[in-house]
Amino acid sequence: MTAGRTHRGSSVVIIGTGLVGASVGCALTRAGWDVHLQDRNPSHAKVAAGVGAGTTDPADPDQVVLVVAAVPPGALARVIAESLNRFPRATVTDVGSIKAELLDNLWRSGADRTRYVGSHPMAGSQLSGPLTANADLFVDRTWVVTPHRESRPDSVELVSAVAAACRAREVRMDVAEHDAAVARVSHLPHLVSALMAGHLTTVPPDQLQLAGQGLRDVTRIAGSDPDLWRQIVAANAVALVPELKAVQDRLAVLITAIEADPVHGADDHLVAGVAGTRLISGKHGQAPVSYAQVVVEIPDQPGMLGKLFTDAGSAGANIEDLSIEHDQVRQVGYVSIAVVADTAEALAAAMRSAGWVARVVPPGRADGLDRS
Amino acid sequence: MTAGRTHRGSSVVIIGTGLVGASVGCALTRAGWDVHLQDRNPSHAKVAAGVGAGTTDPADPDQVVLVVAAVPPGALARVIAESLNRFPRATVTDVGSIKAELLDNLWRSGADRTRYVGSHPMAGSQLSGPLTANADLFVDRTWVVTPHRESRPDSVELVSAVAAACRAREVRMDVAEHDAAVARVSHLPHLVSALMAGHLTTVPPDQLQLAGQGLRDVTRIAGSDPDLWRQIVAANAVALVPELKAVQDRLAVLITAIEADPVHGADDHLVAGVAGTRLISGKHGQAPVSYAQVVVEIPDQPGMLGKLFTDAGSAGANIEDLSIEHDQVRQVGYVSIAVVADTAEALAAAMRSAGWVARVVPPGRADGLDRS
Repeated sequence: MTAGRTHRGSSVVIIGTGLVGASVGCALTRAGWDVHLQDRNPSHAKVAAGVGAGTTDPADPDQVVLVVAAVPPGALARVIAESLNRFPRATVTDVGSIKAELLDNLWRSGADRTRYVGSHPMAGSQLSGPLTANADLFVDRTWVVTPHRESRPDSVELVSAVAAACRAREVRMDVAEHDAAVARVSHLPHLVSALMAGHLTTVPPDQLQLAGQGLRDVTRIAGSDPDLWRQIVAANAVALVPELKAVQDRLAVLITAIEADPVHGADDHLVAGVAGTRLISGKHGQAPVSYAQVVVEIPDQPGMLGKLFTDAGSAGANIEDLSIEHDQVRQVGYVSIAVVADTAEALAAAMRSAGWVARVVPPGRADGLDRS
Repeated sequence: MTAGRTHRGSSVVIIGTGLVGASVGCALTRAGWDVHLQDRNPSHAKVAAGVGAGTTDPADPDQVVLVVAAVPPGALARVIAESLNRFPRATVTDVGSIKAELLDNLWRSGADRTRYVGSHPMAGSQLSGPLTANADLFVDRTWVVTPHRESRPDSVELVSAVAAACRAREVRMDVAEHDAAVARVSHLPHLVSALMAGHLTTVPPDQLQLAGQGLRDVTRIAGSDPDLWRQIVAANAVALVPELKAVQDRLAVLITAIEADPVHGADDHLVAGVAGTRLISGKHGQAPVSYAQVVVEIPDQPGMLGKLFTDAGSAGANIEDLSIEHDQVRQVGYVSIAVVADTAEALAAAMRSAGWVARVVPPGRADGLDRS
């Protein structure tokens, strides 16, 4: 709210009014900034203005103090350089997920890079449209601010104020560290998922009918837009290649170990896998807690899922988590409702008396479906 | 139901009364078979008997026509060989997920392997206990029957009758083909997931706070019991190693391609990944349908999830699918409710008027959370 007081009336230009750009616009407008919206597709900017992200009236270039570039990764470098030239007093930031390559391009462009400071809010997708924008998209989410060595301190402070106005949790990182981090926790997992999914194209179709939920989870993100990911890989190749090679080394060690000792060769690999999942597991980053699962069978008929949750709600259970999986052959799904172990039998009984087929899987057990 | 008529009163021994063994017991008991339960832990057998899986009274060895071995993978070969010797007229089957190694051990044991026919019901987990057993666990699920070249035809028919009594959908596969299939769609994905998760142990903890749902999905199955997976890898190493090497080759091609051309080197890999996910995507194996997502924010307070579904149920929406993810920092979750696109705005409006923060993500878009 310091941001709101200090920058009330400040002229901002947001270029690109997808979900992220328009949501930043909503948050800054709410904080009192004077937000001007631009989009290659003018009707997107109008929709964004309609949801409260700002105005489509042009800004006076000499009055603009801040430009937020929220365009797809492949267009960012050009938009940033153009903005630095077009708005001579403005600090320019972006919301892209890779930074080092942008900086390289900026260095080459000859624009005044001292007024550029990168940022990366960890919410939203460049692909979603302005209709879904909202001022609270970033509340308490991580917002990485990445100053470079020539960034002006007042520009860094201004970008920090944007994160504050969006009520995000600012994390400041060096450009290289940021790019290494997203390579490791986001881009590498995507390529590994695509590695597994791509391999499926070599599996005989008859054998794919044995696929279960585990395979679906591992490969889910590989189904995302390959053009967006082409741009991401292109922009972060420098950080990604060493990670891919580290995985390659790890895989070579595993294969050698299994060949040398089929019985115990994979032990270290499996134990490291469990350790790795624990580093990122747990609800809200807390230590993982064990809950019992009440697994309810649900026919694939209209309205059944809604009825199930109406009944579960009426049973008064404190639902901690839930997941759903579909049987690939039978026209049924299974909903696993996680509850504190003590209360699981009561919930299952209540569901049964409401006409459902329900069973309890104790804490620490699989959910009763085949993962193996 | 043919099975029920033909085998009514037939004496069956089930060894191992976890979820799978006890559920087979329930199904065969319901079909009129005379089921005798055994477990290394006698109280497990008693619990299984309590849920209707059979009796703990010993069977007359000469009268037993069928033995179902439902013990963990590492104990299967021994239990099968002992059963063939102990029950001289019985057909012996198992419910394990790997077959070739079992057969090798059986060949070495000198037992009468002509009475052994493998099976692999694609439901349940060896780790879950008898309390959760039920006669319908296998209804319409895939049940692979794997005769070997010396299996007696009447033994194959008997195992087929077990699958029929469990109302499963039988698929007959050669032992080698079965093992290759599970290597490809289950065991390899597990090791790839562990590969990614194990790599996380090398990532600086500060960087892990940038992790999102994509990474969690890719690594989820790597969190499963490493001892069970050690046994699975050990038993299927012969089929797994060529798959691992194929992935290794695919990874080498990818790295070389990105190094040669960072801009387009990953294109083929990303496109193959999308193609692979499509081979296994879709609800119940149908062609994938695009739904809109209604994303509802849910505070992390007791009862909120139950209330949410009560409200969603009252809104009368036809919920097609749903997922939940937790914000790692903020104490909130996001529930994505998939509905036919036409009805999304109405559901979102109903949820908002019930006090929720809800937004609509159109079909084909990300769910508004960062996957990149």
